Amino acid sequence: MTETTGAGVQGADKGQMVYEGKAKRVYEGPQPDTYVVVYKDDATAFNGEKRGTIVGKGVINNRISNILFRYLETKGIPTHYLKDLSERETLVRALTIVPVEVVVRNRVAGSMAKRLGLPEGQVLPYPVVEFYYKNDALGDPLVNEGHVTALGWASRAEVAAIQTLALRIGELLGQFFTPRGVALVDFKLEFGRDSAGGIRLADEISPDTCRFWDATSGEKLDKDRFRRDLGGVEEAYAEMLRRVEVQA
Amino acid sequence: MTETTGAGVQGADKGQMVYEGKAKRVYEGPQPDTYVVVYKDDATAFNGEKRGTIVGKGVINNRISNILFRYLETKGIPTHYLKDLSERETLVRALTIVPVEVVVRNRVAGSMAKRLGLPEGQVLPYPVVEFYYKNDALGDPLVNEGHVTALGWASRAEVAAIQTLALRIGELLGQFFTPRGVALVDFKLEFGRDSAGGIRLADEISPDTCRFWDATSGEKLDKDRFRRDLGGVEEAYAEMLRRVEVQA
Repeated sequence: MTETTGAGVQGADKGQMVYEGKAKRVYEGPQPDTYVVVYKDDATAFNGEKRGTIVGKGVINNRISNILFRYLETKGIPTHYLKDLSERETLVRALTIVPVEVVVRNRVAGSMAKRLGLPEGQVLPYPVVEFYYKNDALGDPLVNEGHVTALGWASRAEVAAIQTLALRIGELLGQFFTPRGVALVDFKLEFGRDSAGGIRLADEISPDTCRFWDATSGEKLDKDRFRRDLGGVEEAYAEMLRRVEVQA
Repeated sequence: MTETTGAGVQGADKGQMVYEGKAKRVYEGPQPDTYVVVYKDDATAFNGEKRGTIVGKGVINNRISNILFRYLETKGIPTHYLKDLSERETLVRALTIVPVEVVVRNRVAGSMAKRLGLPEGQVLPYPVVEFYYKNDALGDPLVNEGHVTALGWASRAEVAAIQTLALRIGELLGQFFTPRGVALVDFKLEFGRDSAGGIRLADEISPDTCRFWDATSGEKLDKDRFRRDLGGVEEAYAEMLRRVEVQA
């Protein structure tokens, strides 16, 4: 069975839904310590104030993210990825998610441009890592390492591991995207603890969670096309899938 | 000559005004590399949205801050303090101010309570240091170490020095205020570079820049009485001066 909207029955064997987010549902998996992630076509922006559908997004993001997670695993990054189940479904390790969104910025864009009064596109001399507290009711506020550890969201050792992984992932994604003509402006990561207490990359890496600009033209190939009503949203997602699938 | 409002002529010999802030004016001093700071009675809150006068505040803050800066100097903290000039005026070293407000929090209060949805007064397991970009037009946004260094506001070595100094100052202020029956909830510091490139504590430490709670009753003895229209503002400032002047 397949579907196009993400709203109906899915093919893979799975248990109770454990979480529904803006772009994904997560179910208990067929084995202990596994989850099945189902990607939806639903799109939201500005903390849920803007809602819509990007037709085919769930299929594209599932594919892009899985290619990138397999690539990162081959480079030594521990992730939650286990295997593809269907065009919208992926089997992952069940992790306890650290309630912090980790943003790595190579260039100024989006909220950083607005908060700090800087021009979008300004190249940073080295990547800046930001932590945001995952809390929709509070609007996912920016926090720092001290908040994360003093408020018990992660230990100091976990924060150090997350920082190191985030910067290494940024280097690896840069090596992946540069030959594909894509400037990686910024990206958002989430991490979780596995059953052995290890920190692993979770969530997804896709045009929903990254800013991808064409390296030559600067054209946006990501969710900013939806957020900013730029048109050509589905085409941008399809173009990113095409570039990710190229053997570079 | 003396004055009561901070708006008129001042006693000490000084040159051109180089800066006017919400609570102080800064003039060129009588010697090279010196400034004269003049404390005003003007009070503002919420990034200038609320304005008023706290009668006698300039005199009290000048005295409290100078006692604390002399105390910190005896404990090995480099500061801009040179000497008292009059009841509202202090001679300081001319520093190049790092455009970052450094907040050290022992308990949750104010903007941290609001941003993170936490109860005011919650004791933190260890102090949390926050950096805010000094920019009124942007509302002094919270930033992290990465922003401070990547955007060139301070070097990595300077940020490390500032972090270490801020935490040490917190310990020393705790030792000062505990025997005086005052809980130091949080405080804001500013730092600058001297002519030799060293980092020194600048600005002031006063009821304008700290949250002081009576250790027994929890009564607020700081600018929150003005911000929140609690009444007894002048009395709270006078009470803090009394406690700071006690030989504990």
